Amino acid sequence: MIYLDNAATSWPKPPQVIQAMTDILKRGCANPGRSAHAMARQTEDAVLNVREAVAKFFNIKDPLRIAFMPNTTYALNAAIYGVITEGSVVATTAMEHNSVLRPLKTLESRGIIGLETVEPDRYGRISVQSIKKVLRKGIDLFCMTVSSNVTGAIMPVTEAGRICRELGITFLVDAAQGAGVIPIDVERMNIDMLAFPGHKGLLGPQGTAGLYVREGIKIKPFIQGGTGSFSDRLFQPEVFPDILESGTLNVPGIVGLGKGISFISETGIEHIRLKKKKLLTMLFEALSKEENITVFSPGPEQNSGIFAFLVHHMDSSEVSYILDRKFGICTRSGFHCAPLAHRALGTSDSGLVRISPGYFNNETEIELTIEAIRSIARRKL
Amino acid sequence: MIYLDNAATSWPKPPQVIQAMTDILKRGCANPGRSAHAMARQTEDAVLNVREAVAKFFNIKDPLRIAFMPNTTYALNAAIYGVITEGSVVATTAMEHNSVLRPLKTLESRGIIGLETVEPDRYGRISVQSIKKVLRKGIDLFCMTVSSNVTGAIMPVTEAGRICRELGITFLVDAAQGAGVIPIDVERMNIDMLAFPGHKGLLGPQGTAGLYVREGIKIKPFIQGGTGSFSDRLFQPEVFPDILESGTLNVPGIVGLGKGISFISETGIEHIRLKKKKLLTMLFEALSKEENITVFSPGPEQNSGIFAFLVHHMDSSEVSYILDRKFGICTRSGFHCAPLAHRALGTSDSGLVRISPGYFNNETEIELTIEAIRSIARRKL
Repeated sequence: MIYLDNAATSWPKPPQVIQAMTDILKRGCANPGRSAHAMARQTEDAVLNVREAVAKFFNIKDPLRIAFMPNTTYALNAAIYGVITEGSVVATTAMEHNSVLRPLKTLESRGIIGLETVEPDRYGRISVQSIKKVLRKGIDLFCMTVSSNVTGAIMPVTEAGRICRELGITFLVDAAQGAGVIPIDVERMNIDMLAFPGHKGLLGPQGTAGLYVREGIKIKPFIQGGTGSFSDRLFQPEVFPDILESGTLNVPGIVGLGKGISFISETGIEHIRLKKKKLLTMLFEALSKEENITVFSPGPEQNSGIFAFLVHHMDSSEVSYILDRKFGICTRSGFHCAPLAHRALGTSDSGLVRISPGYFNNETEIELTIEAIRSIARRKL
Repeated sequence: MIYLDNAATSWPKPPQVIQAMTDILKRGCANPGRSAHAMARQTEDAVLNVREAVAKFFNIKDPLRIAFMPNTTYALNAAIYGVITEGSVVATTAMEHNSVLRPLKTLESRGIIGLETVEPDRYGRISVQSIKKVLRKGIDLFCMTVSSNVTGAIMPVTEAGRICRELGITFLVDAAQGAGVIPIDVERMNIDMLAFPGHKGLLGPQGTAGLYVREGIKIKPFIQGGTGSFSDRLFQPEVFPDILESGTLNVPGIVGLGKGISFISETGIEHIRLKKKKLLTMLFEALSKEENITVFSPGPEQNSGIFAFLVHHMDSSEVSYILDRKFGICTRSGFHCAPLAHRALGTSDSGLVRISPGYFNNETEIELTIEAIRSIARRKL
């Protein structure tokens, strides 16, 4: 089986990720922050270590401003619902995932927020010019992804951050498709809130994600409940990370995530990016000139790791189906939870086939995939 | 180390729980419901199997009415915020955890809901009479725990369910302290919504929980985002479980939870209950007549597995501290995220020492614990 669906979730995980999860589950995994006994303190230390590793990874000054969460969708909802108030004006781009678009459209449809959208070009790219056209003083929040989950197109986060800072707009970045491949520095990029997944580019297990909130950003708690702190109070504490971390954390998952981040730091994010670029380049070189294929992803330089394409006169699901059943190649087809992106790309009817290689894929696997796709495109099945 | 903090999180886990998590992480853990390739289908099947196991365990007719969630706090928030509307009247008991009280107090303080509270007696017990005094036609939602996380007192869920059904009140049950020890049957108990943890009595890993919502209960989605279904739409789908399951699920955790439930089914919930009762009985018999000790838990028959006590003239934290440092015994002290329960018990200043044995504790461990507590109470340290 050739796994090329790393944009959905990365697989395989580094062995030390799984080992660390097994170890803590066996050795002792208490409830951190609740009790004060030895096992609870050890568990709390384990979680704090990962909080510090995440902070270092994204250049976050205060690790306590990072709250662990179950997935990026949750983190984005917590960020959006946490900072908007009635009458807020929010801007976003048409390339966003439904984890940003659905909460924003829901809030807009209820008359709570005003919503403005930055449009991409027909290749799904967001230009600095198009951002400047939409952002202005009076906009409260701008949400943008690091790179498109449909095409892999890398977005101008640094420039957007600079514009937001100048205009006093809170800048929320969705790192679902960027973390672990593209270096993210919340200070340099002027990121006010960063939502990141643990189970994609950071190579941790599913069930892990987080939200960083810069000091000074006023945020309401998203859920209220047991925090282990201020237990005698009937209202959610205001301290970080407790304000955003109610209920028992996914400790084995978080510990696994810590090992994913160590693996990336040891391997080097630049090395990971280069490896992905090399695999992408192979796909582009072999398939972009193929007669029956249209490629929708930008070239490897502007791409975080996705090769999105269509075979003419074939449904995207059919292509993925053949790749899976005949060749044992795992890809994703159809719509990628980003309806406005598909509209912009003109693929609202067909969907797209998405190939997303990971660090653990090798050149042979990509060669086999190229041959398989060629044989489909040339109808030599 | 003697672990007696199972009410916070159960430990150890059955070996098959950890094994199953390791297996799926190694063998292939794709993103269920997103792609259609072989690994994604296998992952989806694995999740569906656990959904069916949970359904069978709680006698839930339609497994698709169960949404997996990261923890019970989240499940309770999703249930409460999902069914209330402006002007709703909600009733609850003073014995609830902050995961129920904090969202309700927040909603009350914002003027969104009316809130009425059933008071316990001074032993923290909720009588059917006191429930009848508060519940009436016009109340929209009643939230009650299966058993108190402070004292272990088992609540009259069956009777409360009958009253709610008669009066047309939606009945939300918090099974954080009951699931896996007390048989829960949503049909027989007239439970409309059941929030349950995976990592306590069900012996699964942290990061797992769920919410069951009976067919016919109108619920709004709590977060909005990618569901893998209806990906081309800008609004959250209404189908179950997608309406409540946005973002990537904690698949390894859910698979582990499945093995926890199998373990309970194979062992027999009645056998687990009896084992806990035996250990509790030892604690009661040895310590309840001890001169310097006051016990706050009801006897083993009315108790899901907690022995809460105070040593006279000692802070609860001090007792837990000595138990930990001198005897290697893990207990929880202080306030247990249930401020109104402490008020009712008169322990708002002192907190309580909570001992919560699990199925894997043995009699020797309890004997050692009894001796340790006696030596503290008799100041023979």
